[in-house]
Amino acid sequence: MRVDVPLPKAYLLLNHGPVTLVSSHAAERRNVMAASWAMPLDFDPPKVAVVIDRNTLTRELVDASGEFALNVPSRMLAATVVEVGSASGRTVDKWSRFGIGALPAARIAAPLVADCIAWLECRVLAERPTEQRYDLFVAEVVAASADDRVFSAGRWHFGDEALRSLHYVAGGQFFATGEALAVGATA
Amino acid sequence: MRVDVPLPKAYLLLNHGPVTLVSSHAAERRNVMAASWAMPLDFDPPKVAVVIDRNTLTRELVDASGEFALNVPSRMLAATVVEVGSASGRTVDKWSRFGIGALPAARIAAPLVADCIAWLECRVLAERPTEQRYDLFVAEVVAASADDRVFSAGRWHFGDEALRSLHYVAGGQFFATGEALAVGATA
Repeated sequence: MRVDVPLPKAYLLLNHGPVTLVSSHAAERRNVMAASWAMPLDFDPPKVAVVIDRNTLTRELVDASGEFALNVPSRMLAATVVEVGSASGRTVDKWSRFGIGALPAARIAAPLVADCIAWLECRVLAERPTEQRYDLFVAEVVAASADDRVFSAGRWHFGDEALRSLHYVAGGQFFATGEALAVGATA
Repeated sequence: MRVDVPLPKAYLLLNHGPVTLVSSHAAERRNVMAASWAMPLDFDPPKVAVVIDRNTLTRELVDASGEFALNVPSRMLAATVVEVGSASGRTVDKWSRFGIGALPAARIAAPLVADCIAWLECRVLAERPTEQRYDLFVAEVVAASADDRVFSAGRWHFGDEALRSLHYVAGGQFFATGEALAVGATA
């Protein structure tokens, strides 16, 4: 079940470096693309940094709306992550083309990607020089939610192999999020 | 054995979102801190983005030198990742205190962290507004290397469990990089 994540815990949804799907919407158009280059930038209020290439439809929609969502896919969506990179949203609606489900977001107009395991709804904090020079966007997380089968009470618990998050390599290759380990500081 | 990684492949060392150790040096002082908030920003020339808190000694050394290295630790260094966050480089030399080995870098003055599995030597591309507002640094990767037991010919191959990279959660908790999987685009 999708449940709200308190904003000060939202960074935990990205802290381990999973691949994300960026969903966006503006002027009756919507899109979704894959992004490995996304990370937390602050705890509270939570912020993120993400690279959105200037040649993408996503960039156009984010520039127009000032909003996007970062969706964290599980292993079950690995093929979708690759597929959304194989077509341009300018020529097809990727949601229809690849059978991607859309969920309404709580605080932004962009749809969320169904069957993901975590969602961060973001509003762009305009930083034009770094957007223009590096395609680097800074945004505030205004709502966050997660699938409580794998994230609850402020922590990930990947019991089900199929629901593990993914770390993207290149060329359709991923690593699944692996074994949990804990160490205490010995200092 | 530590071998050079061609610069256009350097992004692969960070693409899957591992935790990093940031090493720095200026005016006879050196430091090392942990950073999960680091990601690739471009392919060629390779660039990275990393968050370096304004209250850290690392920030002072990076501001003074314009350089730092991102070191990718393996599971064998998990305790070190936690330990370097348990003390300030202002009061102890963490390298001596925690028995961290230093290797000379190829292109920068900062030492590299021995026993890591990948290293990115970086020069800051000054972006003062985002540094000051978000502690967010942009840098160019000027040299890259990796342990060829786990990265060679442009790809990771984690055979040895102890040499897997780490993904940081919080409070001394990590995930190891897990199972490799590959999917083909079906579009």
